[in-house]
Amino acid sequence: MAKSKNRGVSPSRQEDFPAWFQAVVREGEVAELAHVRGSMVIRPWGYAIWELMQAELDRQIKRSGASNAYFPLFIPLSYIESEAKHVEGFAKEMAVVTHHRLEADPDDPGHLRPGGKLTEPLVVRPTSETIIGRSFAKWINSYRDLPLMVNQWANVVRWEMRPRVLLRTTEFLWQEGHTAFASEDEARANAEQMLEVYRDFAESFLAMPVLTGEKPEEERFPGAVMTLSIEAMMQDGKALQAGTSHYLGQSFAEAAEIDFLDREGERSLVHTASWGVSTRLLGALIMSHSDDVGLRLPPAVAPQQVVIVPIPRGEEGAAVLEAAQELAREIGELSVGGEPVRVSADLRDREPPDKRWEWVRKGVPLVLELGPRDLQEGVVALRRRDAGDAKPESLQRSRVASAIPALLTEIQDSYREAAAERLASRTRDDVTDLDGFREWFDTDPGDAGAGGFLRAPWSEAPESAKILEEMKVTVRCLPFDQGLPPNSRCVLTGEPAVVEAVFAKAY
Amino acid sequence: MAKSKNRGVSPSRQEDFPAWFQAVVREGEVAELAHVRGSMVIRPWGYAIWELMQAELDRQIKRSGASNAYFPLFIPLSYIESEAKHVEGFAKEMAVVTHHRLEADPDDPGHLRPGGKLTEPLVVRPTSETIIGRSFAKWINSYRDLPLMVNQWANVVRWEMRPRVLLRTTEFLWQEGHTAFASEDEARANAEQMLEVYRDFAESFLAMPVLTGEKPEEERFPGAVMTLSIEAMMQDGKALQAGTSHYLGQSFAEAAEIDFLDREGERSLVHTASWGVSTRLLGALIMSHSDDVGLRLPPAVAPQQVVIVPIPRGEEGAAVLEAAQELAREIGELSVGGEPVRVSADLRDREPPDKRWEWVRKGVPLVLELGPRDLQEGVVALRRRDAGDAKPESLQRSRVASAIPALLTEIQDSYREAAAERLASRTRDDVTDLDGFREWFDTDPGDAGAGGFLRAPWSEAPESAKILEEMKVTVRCLPFDQGLPPNSRCVLTGEPAVVEAVFAKAY
Repeated sequence: MAKSKNRGVSPSRQEDFPAWFQAVVREGEVAELAHVRGSMVIRPWGYAIWELMQAELDRQIKRSGASNAYFPLFIPLSYIESEAKHVEGFAKEMAVVTHHRLEADPDDPGHLRPGGKLTEPLVVRPTSETIIGRSFAKWINSYRDLPLMVNQWANVVRWEMRPRVLLRTTEFLWQEGHTAFASEDEARANAEQMLEVYRDFAESFLAMPVLTGEKPEEERFPGAVMTLSIEAMMQDGKALQAGTSHYLGQSFAEAAEIDFLDREGERSLVHTASWGVSTRLLGALIMSHSDDVGLRLPPAVAPQQVVIVPIPRGEEGAAVLEAAQELAREIGELSVGGEPVRVSADLRDREPPDKRWEWVRKGVPLVLELGPRDLQEGVVALRRRDAGDAKPESLQRSRVASAIPALLTEIQDSYREAAAERLASRTRDDVTDLDGFREWFDTDPGDAGAGGFLRAPWSEAPESAKILEEMKVTVRCLPFDQGLPPNSRCVLTGEPAVVEAVFAKAY
Repeated sequence: MAKSKNRGVSPSRQEDFPAWFQAVVREGEVAELAHVRGSMVIRPWGYAIWELMQAELDRQIKRSGASNAYFPLFIPLSYIESEAKHVEGFAKEMAVVTHHRLEADPDDPGHLRPGGKLTEPLVVRPTSETIIGRSFAKWINSYRDLPLMVNQWANVVRWEMRPRVLLRTTEFLWQEGHTAFASEDEARANAEQMLEVYRDFAESFLAMPVLTGEKPEEERFPGAVMTLSIEAMMQDGKALQAGTSHYLGQSFAEAAEIDFLDREGERSLVHTASWGVSTRLLGALIMSHSDDVGLRLPPAVAPQQVVIVPIPRGEEGAAVLEAAQELAREIGELSVGGEPVRVSADLRDREPPDKRWEWVRKGVPLVLELGPRDLQEGVVALRRRDAGDAKPESLQRSRVASAIPALLTEIQDSYREAAAERLASRTRDDVTDLDGFREWFDTDPGDAGAGGFLRAPWSEAPESAKILEEMKVTVRCLPFDQGLPPNSRCVLTGEPAVVEAVFAKAY
């Protein structure tokens, strides 16, 4: 199978994990950094994956009671200033619009320059709390207007000095949910409920089990009272924060003056929450499941779950093409997970092996090949994308209808199980001191087989932060399932521990 | 029915059509200009209408063979400069990003100012031809890569000096399709096919019949060889361009260097087309169907097609609430147009008449009311939104299942027929000279009963442009169904006519 190796991406995960990731993204035609430093084009194949994610998440968001809406891209500088007064550590790397015109440059013929200077600069939204908060203030008058739950699918911009495709881009796509409640309990419950939506989505849809927990204070969203996150483990053992949910207390309500007349006729500030996931999830999906050949997509997010490649040789060429289309029609009438199987016959004018490898590199779960001999024998050659370099199996044509849905479910499960196994086997909880801690994290980060999560007692002491910073390790979360034994000592400082934490290097 | 009048919007269409439109948009909670001059918030009710439009259009776009993708928000100034060289009349009102940071202003403590000046300013996309063209140049190498058909759902920005909600906003949402072909015929056919998608969508989904035709040369998209449009007639007789489709020839391919190796091994430039519709469609929908009470939504785009308002009085309050929910469940199991009926029971803690009028103002096609007496008598009170101020009808509870889908279909048809009737009756084709032309268009534009389209022979002579400009009338299109009699004279100049044109005042 040397040939298939040649068709894989280069370098391999073992050789250079970050470069492998970029190669998979590029060769799989998912996305590319292009045109403007830090900006990306999400190509049709990648965008189709994102659309499948969106559709499922959108269903869950609506089920939670939230409605979609759309708010302006531009935020007045004064809104950000007012926010900055309430919130220490406000992110400052943002795109600023200062002019509303392009005009001919009299000093440089043939060139254009900005004109029409704005009285007040506008910021391209890095997130929409300030705008949405002020709209909420207008819409909410009495307890009858609560809860108010709004979600927005939008592009946001945060200037990135060291961009990486899908993981850290100046512009990215996301959904941001913003909710307002009469009481703290309801707002906290909303933040928790949406984290559970993300957890379940990651696990069952993306086949990517995650850790759930609360962020330590210094990792909270600026201004939040509580930040929750889901943390996935990539194949190099690093963590990737794949979704967050915040209880914001009343500070954002205070800044935007969102108050309401309660049942007793008193004015009170609302309690707000917010939650979001972004196109980073595409990066997480890829680093979680793909291999040295290329992309591997769980069937739930595969734009094509089955592709049929006809091999039309000799006199029977036309019959083979016809049979491939007939097979696609038949499979398209099958269902998996309540939806029709996404299938196509690739009839493009290219060499069959090129087509096959294109779909393999793009992560299609099942590639079926059909030549004149298969036609005669009443079989199709079946390649499972989760089977590595294994030889194709021969599938009886008559068994296709019963086999395909079951195979897709099997592949979805096999990816999830592999990811779950990795998360379990590469999370250590038996390290008790700094030496062991260093040993675990001092492995080569490029080595796909090394490193992972470390779960241990933590003192939250300031001196632990210094050790972590120097090692480039972070506290990923304080997991929900706390199990701190009495008299535990901090793994970093040896001081009395106050909480159990999960440590990891992270994207 | 004086009371219902009080609950309507003010002013009426007759009193002040533009102000009526704004009131319907505001009271129907569709959208509002807010936060930044010219920017709008699309509220949940308005956004839900847009989502229904998107879903249907997206199906049609994908059926045409196009795939969705996403391209950067920011365009380098140099791209625009290169485009400007090829294209006269390039729009210049655009938002320009010049800085990538906000920093404390040392001269003005407590305030922020732009920092981190960019070497090259970035333009917020007014449309994406330049970016997408350059990506196409990279992706297209041989005839095997053609056709390439990509669509993007995105926000775009064109600075508006005189913004109007939904109709003319600095930022708006749209879809832009960009396609590349080996031959002119294919590219033209694609532009025509997509215009037909828009026409059918407007007519069958939005209940808004439109005129189709080609734009005269001076109204073409800058750089286009051919611009096609659908033109709808609003209730004040003005035209609203509701969708456009362009055949761009090879000039955009030349600017972006999109060439390919053809079957003969020669390098050729591709032929490109583009097509789009925007959130303006929401404005068209409203000005086409709404009345002096408020919004009226064709069932196909009504986020709720049926709302049940319980009137829980006295001892039977709980039974009424229970019956309302049961009725909603039952109706939710019905289908119309192949989709489940969108229905809800409004159980909010408010007065029943307030609820009823809220749904009426929001354009819900059917509002059902259910009180203790209805419950006893086995009936529900039914209000058809297309029936004006008519008294509610009494519907036997047992007939609900058979009646609701048919009623929704009837309402969809009644809106479409009213709009078709208007388009037909207010399009004159019997005006032969300038006096008659002036008379038709010199009516008060605020008068909902006056004016409309005028179809007549046209010379395309330059002096006709002056007359039109002075009268604020435009050539909407050269309709596809040309029927120019021999020896026709131009309605404006009396010169020999070369084409039949449709003239109108327009949004």
